[in-house]
Amino acid sequence: MKLKLAIISAILLFTITLSLAGPEEILPSWNKGEAREKIIKFVDSVTDKNSKNYITPENRVAVFDNDGTLWVEKPFYIQFEYEFYHMKKMAEQDPALREIQPYKASYRDDKTYLYGDEVVEYYEKMINNHKGTTQEDYKKDVDYFLATQTHGKFKRHYMELTYLPMVELVHYLQGKGFKVYIVSGGEVTFVRRISEKIYNIPVENIIGSFVSYEFDVPDCKGERAIIRGNLINIDDGANKPLNIELFTGRRAVFACGNSNGDMEMLRYTADNGGFALLIHHDDDAREYAYDKGIREVLNLAVKEKKITVVSMKRDFKKIFSFE
Amino acid sequence: MKLKLAIISAILLFTITLSLAGPEEILPSWNKGEAREKIIKFVDSVTDKNSKNYITPENRVAVFDNDGTLWVEKPFYIQFEYEFYHMKKMAEQDPALREIQPYKASYRDDKTYLYGDEVVEYYEKMINNHKGTTQEDYKKDVDYFLATQTHGKFKRHYMELTYLPMVELVHYLQGKGFKVYIVSGGEVTFVRRISEKIYNIPVENIIGSFVSYEFDVPDCKGERAIIRGNLINIDDGANKPLNIELFTGRRAVFACGNSNGDMEMLRYTADNGGFALLIHHDDDAREYAYDKGIREVLNLAVKEKKITVVSMKRDFKKIFSFE
Repeated sequence: MKLKLAIISAILLFTITLSLAGPEEILPSWNKGEAREKIIKFVDSVTDKNSKNYITPENRVAVFDNDGTLWVEKPFYIQFEYEFYHMKKMAEQDPALREIQPYKASYRDDKTYLYGDEVVEYYEKMINNHKGTTQEDYKKDVDYFLATQTHGKFKRHYMELTYLPMVELVHYLQGKGFKVYIVSGGEVTFVRRISEKIYNIPVENIIGSFVSYEFDVPDCKGERAIIRGNLINIDDGANKPLNIELFTGRRAVFACGNSNGDMEMLRYTADNGGFALLIHHDDDAREYAYDKGIREVLNLAVKEKKITVVSMKRDFKKIFSFE
Repeated sequence: MKLKLAIISAILLFTITLSLAGPEEILPSWNKGEAREKIIKFVDSVTDKNSKNYITPENRVAVFDNDGTLWVEKPFYIQFEYEFYHMKKMAEQDPALREIQPYKASYRDDKTYLYGDEVVEYYEKMINNHKGTTQEDYKKDVDYFLATQTHGKFKRHYMELTYLPMVELVHYLQGKGFKVYIVSGGEVTFVRRISEKIYNIPVENIIGSFVSYEFDVPDCKGERAIIRGNLINIDDGANKPLNIELFTGRRAVFACGNSNGDMEMLRYTADNGGFALLIHHDDDAREYAYDKGIREVLNLAVKEKKITVVSMKRDFKKIFSFE
């Protein structure tokens, strides 16, 4: 009798504990609405073995753009901030560079020039500034930048500037057996320095712009090292779905981006019967509002109705974890 | 009393079942000897949390060459057999090709020429024969070749010609939490067509030689397709460890190869405190015996003692599952 009572008590306690905790809320930083509902409906349908849309775990490939999709990209891409920081150091060493753009603006902290349109054209040149550097030294330099520099508006380290609802989405998909990749225009090694820490995305799941590599023995120290060369692939536009094929051999079934550079990736995923999500930055109060560089894909989303648009203002309950 | 008896019986039965089954044998197709012992010792030491050599699961990266390491490469690489098969079809369509090498030899089934030294120089040209083909059509053609053609000596489909002890090694490492990659001089899509079926290695873990891709709309049918371009990266020699860095962002801790083209990968892994294994084909009775293309790395293995040499004759109890 005593034993029976103990068992009943244990069962009761277990039940109470369960009901107090409640089922874990899905995507808690998203407002309830169409975007959140459609995401959950899609994920439920492709993970349900009895559904006609069922996708086996090995084919559950989700791809996310990084800048502006998972973390802040204004007033400029965080990698550009790193390149400005790096060029400033170069100009401090070499006075001749102080008269050449974009070293000049970097040296003088001329934000008007640095955050202008012109500087984008220097992307390749800026990446190639690291030519001859070992991968190890480059990684250390990126880490130092990230550990010491802060964002002008939010006064926070860049690694804090992730969008909480998007990080929740990454983890939600991972929990549902998706392999989540980042497919970024950013340089692949740069993105790999942050991906595990801030998104829980392993480095082997990062696809990005990349340079050539070669072996060399730096300073004749004997131990071989990988040396960075010039940029050979800009992971933007059509190169995004093409690089997904090259790096994974699979076709994405879930894609998320925020700009015209993601359009090909979103369309190719939607054409595959996959889910395509477009983040629209329309919240000037909490983050930024801008339509530049997104108009084309936004129009396509409205016209073809194959891409779900997320309004950060309407759909995100919280944008940053520090709010 | 009855209950107690039932419990004791159940425990007894469980114990008997366990002892009858015995612990699962590790690498059963390997003969007991130095190579097998060293592999197991290494794996035990890096997976034991209390060991000073412990490696966390995310860094347990194992890389395997494919041709001659995981499956047969004689009388010639299986992908070359595919290219000969493909060139024969090309020459059947276009009589002009019948006078040009290596189409001529392919058309005439001239094995002396095809299995000679000269044809290796045509690797790039042969890969580029598929330029303009969609990835989907290329995959179908490779699949058809593999399903219909057989090996001259063994009279078996190529996908049966895997080395059983090596497949066991792949599965053993996977069971110990290693992420196993193939790093092959073979063209990446070709290797991806076989990797899951015959090795249980997912397509996203295949690194190989690769061509450029672009989007096009074939036959104006509307659906976009990925079109194959020219060879842009030959995954051999130094490119093997460099491509491991590019594709995974990690450094291997276990590497296995069988030729001079794997030397850089083996050395870079050994320099990392990792385990390097070299397969020596010395069993003419059961498979092939050849030293060509392996002398340099074999000498290095003997000299530096950082690479463990596997003698197929001595170390493999069975070579093929069909023996």
